[in-house]
Amino acid sequence: MTPPDIALSRHPAPIRDIVANIPTSKIGDVAALGRDDPDVIPLWFGEGDLTTPEFISEAATRALKAGHTFYTWQRGIPELRQAIAEYTTRLYGNSCKADRITVTSSGMQAIALSCQAIVGPGDNAVVVSPVWPNIVSAVEVMGAEVRQVTLQFRNNAWTLDLDKLFAACDERTRMLFINSPNNPTGWMMNSEQQAAVLEFCRKRRIWLMADEVYARLVYEGEVAPSFLHHARPDDPLLVMQSFSKPWAMTGWRLGWLTSPSEFGEMLAKVIQFNISGSPAFLQHGALAAIKDGEPFIKHMVERCRAGREQVIQRLAGHRKVKVARPEAAFYAFFSVDGMSDSLAFASKLVLDGKVGLAPGVAFGEGGEGYLRLCFASAPERLSRAMDRIEGQLDKL
Amino acid sequence: MTPPDIALSRHPAPIRDIVANIPTSKIGDVAALGRDDPDVIPLWFGEGDLTTPEFISEAATRALKAGHTFYTWQRGIPELRQAIAEYTTRLYGNSCKADRITVTSSGMQAIALSCQAIVGPGDNAVVVSPVWPNIVSAVEVMGAEVRQVTLQFRNNAWTLDLDKLFAACDERTRMLFINSPNNPTGWMMNSEQQAAVLEFCRKRRIWLMADEVYARLVYEGEVAPSFLHHARPDDPLLVMQSFSKPWAMTGWRLGWLTSPSEFGEMLAKVIQFNISGSPAFLQHGALAAIKDGEPFIKHMVERCRAGREQVIQRLAGHRKVKVARPEAAFYAFFSVDGMSDSLAFASKLVLDGKVGLAPGVAFGEGGEGYLRLCFASAPERLSRAMDRIEGQLDKL
Repeated sequence: MTPPDIALSRHPAPIRDIVANIPTSKIGDVAALGRDDPDVIPLWFGEGDLTTPEFISEAATRALKAGHTFYTWQRGIPELRQAIAEYTTRLYGNSCKADRITVTSSGMQAIALSCQAIVGPGDNAVVVSPVWPNIVSAVEVMGAEVRQVTLQFRNNAWTLDLDKLFAACDERTRMLFINSPNNPTGWMMNSEQQAAVLEFCRKRRIWLMADEVYARLVYEGEVAPSFLHHARPDDPLLVMQSFSKPWAMTGWRLGWLTSPSEFGEMLAKVIQFNISGSPAFLQHGALAAIKDGEPFIKHMVERCRAGREQVIQRLAGHRKVKVARPEAAFYAFFSVDGMSDSLAFASKLVLDGKVGLAPGVAFGEGGEGYLRLCFASAPERLSRAMDRIEGQLDKL
Repeated sequence: MTPPDIALSRHPAPIRDIVANIPTSKIGDVAALGRDDPDVIPLWFGEGDLTTPEFISEAATRALKAGHTFYTWQRGIPELRQAIAEYTTRLYGNSCKADRITVTSSGMQAIALSCQAIVGPGDNAVVVSPVWPNIVSAVEVMGAEVRQVTLQFRNNAWTLDLDKLFAACDERTRMLFINSPNNPTGWMMNSEQQAAVLEFCRKRRIWLMADEVYARLVYEGEVAPSFLHHARPDDPLLVMQSFSKPWAMTGWRLGWLTSPSEFGEMLAKVIQFNISGSPAFLQHGALAAIKDGEPFIKHMVERCRAGREQVIQRLAGHRKVKVARPEAAFYAFFSVDGMSDSLAFASKLVLDGKVGLAPGVAFGEGGEGYLRLCFASAPERLSRAMDRIEGQLDKL
């Protein structure tokens, strides 16, 4: 921790300690080393190499041309909320009405806005880790505390101990955060565990924040086990999803939250003083995605399936590497014998190996000792990247 | 105030009192009465009736087609930051480098993110009012207190008493918020007052948050008096601007903050866990606006000038109305003799008069007794609206 006086002296007027002391993203730190080097193969971020499908971009362009350039509904345009509700009902076999849907400017924003509504000083949020890093800051900026409960890596598989999870919750726990399918590990919570966690949250009146942005990137079936399979409309359940991953729309900043309708009404007030609402013409692109985007998802999944095979085979064959075959999402999260500092090794990989991976230490407790590789890329590109990674592993 | 137990019982799990108790927007409450009625002439929101100019939309469309659909820089694409820095240098005659510019997803977001960085429990922000309502919630959600210092309305003009402003600040004041040109009153702070306030903030190490989104909507000269005319790069000054008003881009949600460069670097971390960054392809639209948008601003100002003349003449001629001729922005903010409840009268205007105005009570202390009309509209539309308003005023 930087002492407060340093935070004060760096700036012409005081900055909150909690914000001054947020570390920079360690993924960003690695990327900064090679962002401008065209020789580096970047597999550090959570996005593939495909641009947004044309039919989506064209729908947004049509709406822009048609003049949808004014202020709009805080919770999203009604036709998109309705389409998401129908998509949810169909996909999870569990009726969902549009009054439970709130469109947000990214999945990240759905979480940040929910944190504003739920956690304050003295409160805590229990977070299953390893996990992508931003959730921790979103809780801490509100003055609340994060408690991490780590997944176990045993026999080349990740598992969660529910007793440990429940024991971490106390009377000031306001939120339980679970990201499944999980970034970075590829772990997928099973349906029985989900039912048990939801029941726990009902009884304890704790908000269950489920980050399900990788719900559609599964290698068996149409969708990952979801809390939405079990949910009643008035459960303390907030399911965050995003257009980013299934439809290659990371740069659009559009997501949605499924919540009790009263929570959504309250969130509208929070949206008003954070961003007011998402651009209406972009939402028409999202509408096309959700209505006509199933073939693209199939294509995306098959592409990731090929990437997974290729990368996991080569990683698993290396004597220094241990890796779980991810059940979902598009990451290989692997440990390396003899690597104690993942940030240092990831930096070396960029500078000497010309390949960009995310260091495990960026993903909180349980992450050090690992590297994350996003395999949502063309096969030739992955081959070249794997050659370079192996070259650096051999020098370790 | 709703007692805490009500907030608890309405939801399946606890919501923060501070958020549960945020009132809904009173502008929104009025708009809800007539939003679906095509006969209502809506002049309630802070936007005109022009869609975004084609050259801006086309630039965004080209960038979208070119595949700018990936994650991007937290603080904005470099070419836009550079263009804004040059625009700032030219417009204010005061050198500004790109490292002081941060692109945000709306001016509102620039404020909300800055509040996260600056104010916490025990702190306060001093806000000049009447003011558009969201700033109050953006401060309060962080657990900080808002102190309003009201403008005076005398001899048909608005003025600010600096002694009163400075006296409201104490050792826990972290931010002084001034919106000039002002929404809703049209008041414009003069350059001497700005120099004095900036000097006060330097000495007291208080962040001066200047909302200058109406900087270009002035009826004499090219730009309103600005703190940027006086600023040194390391002043505790945060100037928020937006693409919304000058370029008819309200629905795009794009703005920017000019700050000390270190503050911008810190804000990048806050952006990361709030939204990650603004869509890159939209930023290419903004780039076109700032590079080639001067003729449109001239057109917009002339249109508003005509609207101002028309509306102020008719309002000033009504025996029950008192109104200041706004020096800037696109609002008439007028008091009505015999109207004690602006929300009730604005509701009546919608339901019986078929015209939508914003009730003064929505703008905090000093706002009750007034109505706000946005005159950035076609002259025929304004004529019809004024006929209807006069009809209702006569019945009061």
